Amino acid sequence: MRFAVLVSGTGTNLQALLDAEAAGQLAPAEIAAVASNRPGVLALERARVAGKPAITVEHRGYPSREAFEDALLEALAPHRIDAIVLAGFMRVLTPRFLDRFPLRVVNTHPSILPAFPGHDAAAQAIAHGVKLSGCTVHLVDSGVDTGPIIAQRAVPILSGDDAVALQRRIQAEEHRLLPAVVRALAAGRISCEGRSVVIAPGDSSDDADQLV
Amino acid sequence: MRFAVLVSGTGTNLQALLDAEAAGQLAPAEIAAVASNRPGVLALERARVAGKPAITVEHRGYPSREAFEDALLEALAPHRIDAIVLAGFMRVLTPRFLDRFPLRVVNTHPSILPAFPGHDAAAQAIAHGVKLSGCTVHLVDSGVDTGPIIAQRAVPILSGDDAVALQRRIQAEEHRLLPAVVRALAAGRISCEGRSVVIAPGDSSDDADQLV
Repeated sequence: MRFAVLVSGTGTNLQALLDAEAAGQLAPAEIAAVASNRPGVLALERARVAGKPAITVEHRGYPSREAFEDALLEALAPHRIDAIVLAGFMRVLTPRFLDRFPLRVVNTHPSILPAFPGHDAAAQAIAHGVKLSGCTVHLVDSGVDTGPIIAQRAVPILSGDDAVALQRRIQAEEHRLLPAVVRALAAGRISCEGRSVVIAPGDSSDDADQLV
Repeated sequence: MRFAVLVSGTGTNLQALLDAEAAGQLAPAEIAAVASNRPGVLALERARVAGKPAITVEHRGYPSREAFEDALLEALAPHRIDAIVLAGFMRVLTPRFLDRFPLRVVNTHPSILPAFPGHDAAAQAIAHGVKLSGCTVHLVDSGVDTGPIIAQRAVPILSGDDAVALQRRIQAEEHRLLPAVVRALAAGRISCEGRSVVIAPGDSSDDADQLV
């Protein structure tokens, strides 16, 4: 299963996917291209270093969300994409785009959804005074961080944590969880009924991902 | 520190507190009385079996929230209460009542707040399709499950779980967490600045509660 990774910034989650692939831990998933809606971001450099097609389609250059998405699809077309990972991609996708990849678009979010959707989830968690936050990998729908949840991990808030320290601790957990979900998705182990996502057990090496 | 435990139902969290006290694990907290707003509930029987004063003050017998609370305070007065635990108590308390016990009223809730406040938190979690839920012990304010958070624990949702199975797994975690928080509160280890609750380290035996 050939994935495009969509990015907007530094690309630490992209790097976790690239590292997993380089270590042989992402198959049968393959990263076929990386695309950014912002030019010059570090994520694109990470893609190039890993020898991946690094595509920029600036959303500002298009009159509508649909026009931007059409340009993005056109740029991705040569790479024969089956599925998409949003890794810090800061644009909401339309149903029209998402319908091109049914149950094949995943996002990672740095909170235990439905708590703290949207921007600055770690800062939201610190401001609320929670003692547990974490990360969520979910199927993408046209809302903001509202799609069916595939997997979640908890991360403690420790005494003296600020948003930066918490964000860093959450990212370490995301970097383990996201490649595991991408591998399971590519292996056809993920199905969805309504809001309920089921992950089928893998073979013994897959079980190391602790998704089931 | 002398606690009243307020209940409305079966009282499984009350039982966890009574068991901790009987095992010598609640000191310096002491359960001085148990009060219910509903007559004949199992929680009252649990109190009597443990040799605790078991008080009923029916909220339906009073014309206003304030009148009910005044009657409750009057019934508790002989027991010289310093602090209150809400253990399945289904009434919202007014600021006027809460101001009598500043930073001394705690509640336990079966979700990782702010997700799934209010009734039927386990059913809400199953309906939403989350993969992690848990429990929260928090200081009580006049909102519904909105007060500053003292401690939280995560509980996984497993394949095939319904709300009853999840509720049971969450309760097992609540039954460990709530007595640990009550003990820490009685020991003066809990302070609060805005929404941020700090738990001071205890002595070596306290550290077993893993709150810090």
